Amino acid sequence: MNDDRVFGAIEIGGTKIICAVGKEDGTIFERMRFPTSSPDADIPAMADFFSGHGISSLGVGTFGPVDLRGQGEDYGTILECPREKWSHCRLGQRLKDSIGVPVIVDSDVNAACIGEACFGAGKGKENVLYITVGTGIGIGFTISGRPLHGLMHPEGGHSKVLVHEKETIASVCRLHPDCAEGFASGPALEKRLGTRGENIRPDDPVWEIETYYLSQLVRNCMQILSPNVIVMGGGVMEQAHLFPMIRSKVLEQLHGHYIHAESSDMDSYIVPSRLGGDQALLGCLRMARGVFGHPSSGL
Amino acid sequence: MNDDRVFGAIEIGGTKIICAVGKEDGTIFERMRFPTSSPDADIPAMADFFSGHGISSLGVGTFGPVDLRGQGEDYGTILECPREKWSHCRLGQRLKDSIGVPVIVDSDVNAACIGEACFGAGKGKENVLYITVGTGIGIGFTISGRPLHGLMHPEGGHSKVLVHEKETIASVCRLHPDCAEGFASGPALEKRLGTRGENIRPDDPVWEIETYYLSQLVRNCMQILSPNVIVMGGGVMEQAHLFPMIRSKVLEQLHGHYIHAESSDMDSYIVPSRLGGDQALLGCLRMARGVFGHPSSGL
Repeated sequence: MNDDRVFGAIEIGGTKIICAVGKEDGTIFERMRFPTSSPDADIPAMADFFSGHGISSLGVGTFGPVDLRGQGEDYGTILECPREKWSHCRLGQRLKDSIGVPVIVDSDVNAACIGEACFGAGKGKENVLYITVGTGIGIGFTISGRPLHGLMHPEGGHSKVLVHEKETIASVCRLHPDCAEGFASGPALEKRLGTRGENIRPDDPVWEIETYYLSQLVRNCMQILSPNVIVMGGGVMEQAHLFPMIRSKVLEQLHGHYIHAESSDMDSYIVPSRLGGDQALLGCLRMARGVFGHPSSGL
Repeated sequence: MNDDRVFGAIEIGGTKIICAVGKEDGTIFERMRFPTSSPDADIPAMADFFSGHGISSLGVGTFGPVDLRGQGEDYGTILECPREKWSHCRLGQRLKDSIGVPVIVDSDVNAACIGEACFGAGKGKENVLYITVGTGIGIGFTISGRPLHGLMHPEGGHSKVLVHEKETIASVCRLHPDCAEGFASGPALEKRLGTRGENIRPDDPVWEIETYYLSQLVRNCMQILSPNVIVMGGGVMEQAHLFPMIRSKVLEQLHGHYIHAESSDMDSYIVPSRLGGDQALLGCLRMARGVFGHPSSGL
């Protein structure tokens, strides 16, 4: 059945916000991007963008942690986080009030995972793990297309890693001295090198350290979540040479364990995103269709 | 609705097999227990036990890894494993042929998790993580009561842990030099101490090491799976003094992260099994009801 309704999508990242209007099949008609500032400045800008587009509902993927369990006004509230102006922002309710349509909220990484599962590298796979490696490290997981929630949403970027013996920096994570984000995010790379990752040659020894951490995260997620495919995206993963390094280190760590029909070919098991940065927006469009309804989303 | 059908349940562990007949509400009428030997000896013994009981279908929880994705004869096949006689055993098909009823198979830990979610310490919680610490370490996970599969089933006991600085043994895991099972299972405790865990006083320093590992596993599972409750069982967890140690080490490692309404009270977030060892059998009875049907189970 063709769904002619027009939906809204908002991706709220730590540095930028992207708003888009499109259809549930992933067609994007119009988009707007602006730097993240504060809810008081940014929510009216979002409302302005959607005004007159006749959207039926809105899907939102935001940095976390975000409360997806709360009822009523609490649904979609950003919890205590380093971005002080956003901490405790009742994002879901404020967007609903400003834009006047049902609003469904998820973590930006779960939204990206839904995007990959519906339109990208996870299409046709039962359970999809998406790992983003950029300003932060986050994971999203979908089970037959539905995002994993539970307590909140996965925050696997903060799971534990063993520190590399040649490590020269302390964790950049505000909270954890020992998590994947603390040692393998973009800011960790930059702290270690004094320059951004994209300026480093593929044969630099730093990638050995980087993939030491990422392969630990991938291995743990694999053994704990049992995904049918692992899609990796985010700024750091644009370095395509990281993929073979991660695959080989994961294989090495598994020691033959967990090798099954789908995982035996690591080239098709651990794969890059195919959506060129639009995975979260596309996931938000799909969320807006209302298939993952929450009683307080209005969907 | 009251379901008067009688169901069969089989728990296949590395050392013992338990067969039971009961109802979907968890009532067990009759049970039989015998040491695990080989499929050729044990499958006929199981068939004998169920003969004449008029069971409608059979739920099986087995040590893994077990193929839950295969179709036809491959469904429920035990994969390559240390128990040579069981490797490649077409368990699902052989039980179906011997007993003549539909058979649904899962890992023993997923079965135990279903048991806890339906009847035990996970009752009423959305997503339940069950961790068993015994001869091996395994995890099971249910989402709104349904077990997590995907590639196979979770095998989180083999996820990575950082080795304690006072560690005196090498990993007892056949495959991994660095996994939770290798350092925190019953056999690891025994190797470290020369005696079984139940003979060790609660104030022995070994428990500090044991919970160092278990708290890493719990933390990683928490951040990766986002469960609403974590139920721990198995022989080692009968040492009740381990619970406060694990809770405090998990809290310490989280550094305030992931603390939410449900997880803020660790005493009710990380809890002992309440089913006295029957969790897997009860889960098998529930599985037999057919709510998690697989096309090749006949349910």
